[in-house]
Amino acid sequence: MSAATPQPALQIFGVDGIPDVRPGDDVAAMILDAAATTTPLQAGDVLVITHKVVSKAEGQLVDMRTVEPSPLAIEWAQTWDRDPRQIEVALRESKRIVRMDRGVLICETRHGFICANAGVDASNVAGDDTLCLLPHDPDASARHIATVAAERLGFAVPIIISDSFGRPWRFGIVNIAIGVAGLLPLSDYRGQTDPYGRELHVSILAVADELASAAELVMNKIDRRPVAIIRGYPWQPGDGKASELIIDPARDLFR
Amino acid sequence: MSAATPQPALQIFGVDGIPDVRPGDDVAAMILDAAATTTPLQAGDVLVITHKVVSKAEGQLVDMRTVEPSPLAIEWAQTWDRDPRQIEVALRESKRIVRMDRGVLICETRHGFICANAGVDASNVAGDDTLCLLPHDPDASARHIATVAAERLGFAVPIIISDSFGRPWRFGIVNIAIGVAGLLPLSDYRGQTDPYGRELHVSILAVADELASAAELVMNKIDRRPVAIIRGYPWQPGDGKASELIIDPARDLFR
Repeated sequence: MSAATPQPALQIFGVDGIPDVRPGDDVAAMILDAAATTTPLQAGDVLVITHKVVSKAEGQLVDMRTVEPSPLAIEWAQTWDRDPRQIEVALRESKRIVRMDRGVLICETRHGFICANAGVDASNVAGDDTLCLLPHDPDASARHIATVAAERLGFAVPIIISDSFGRPWRFGIVNIAIGVAGLLPLSDYRGQTDPYGRELHVSILAVADELASAAELVMNKIDRRPVAIIRGYPWQPGDGKASELIIDPARDLFR
Repeated sequence: MSAATPQPALQIFGVDGIPDVRPGDDVAAMILDAAATTTPLQAGDVLVITHKVVSKAEGQLVDMRTVEPSPLAIEWAQTWDRDPRQIEVALRESKRIVRMDRGVLICETRHGFICANAGVDASNVAGDDTLCLLPHDPDASARHIATVAAERLGFAVPIIISDSFGRPWRFGIVNIAIGVAGLLPLSDYRGQTDPYGRELHVSILAVADELASAAELVMNKIDRRPVAIIRGYPWQPGDGKASELIIDPARDLFR
């Protein structure tokens, strides 16, 4: 076998060395500093950032000692051995309860995401009484980081802010995109033909979700590695938004 | 900046040069031949294969001219401008209809997967009247390819057989795992603690689905590139099955 060394189509780098993020920190600078010393960004790269560092920098934290749970939260928490203050915060972050059954609380968040506990989470947060919320506007957070990156680097770097969501029917959680800037989150093959000349009829790929999932493979829930760089993906530039990844309620068969 | 050239944590290669697959073909040999000449497999690699080449090799094809649609299939197809024979085949591949509404047919397949049209698809199939089904037993297909690969290479290569599924609530399809061999499809962080010493409480990651999504990024629906190699992922060896990725119906809030 004398094949030349093959070139990977895609490379994913974990960005190490990002310090503990606290409210008010300039998380864009912290991420770009860490990347500069470990994996300098190149034109064409995509940055995937777990929402938690963004939420922390934005102060999207709740001290549970300040939370007065409602009777609903108390009863549910007692039934299912949960912390009533955490349930209360999840209810407050929701605009609709999608399911509340068998100990599982599936919420539609203010943003329109449907996920367990409205994305409210206690893991990877300092302080036993602290809960971390989703960013207030993850697309805006992504746009801010993209702006800072472009100013500093001289080229555009699309940003995906990710979280791990469960899915109906399938076990286990996967990383998906909750904030997007600088790329189109959907890749639309409709109207194009396959190699046999047949039109591809259901072929809108949620590439931002696939990029987020790919990034998770190097992030590792336990490590302090909240950022990954994806190199080599032919993303389509554009003013994309994570809301494009939310299905139109009128077409949603699973409300 | 004098940093050494950074090493990616993960590399993904598309495998080119796989010929058109026909019923009876030895798809394992075709994939391994193509990899050998373009991207020789290394210990630690994962092979992700779109189901369509596997289905074709296994003869999981239906000539629509032989299909007599039922009255249900005819009425639905007329209402929603679909081919009644394709609807009929989807119904036959199903053990339960999950939703049949607004032109969308969501089925539970014989395997237990829940997806549009029971995974029956006409794209990327030669012949205007041919439909492609899912493999009869995708885990068995994966195990067969893993066995052939191990014999030929002298080391184990886990196999993931993938398809693109839609998701409730989210727009666009993503690649997921429908067949698995040689690795654990779930990565279970329960009982482990985050850097702050808090137990990670909802942390079972569907890594086989994330690997399938990552692979899709180099596959590209239009190209004839049905196989990707993922290098650098620390998969956990084991007798994993794709059925582990299907939620227990008793715990499924979205039946």
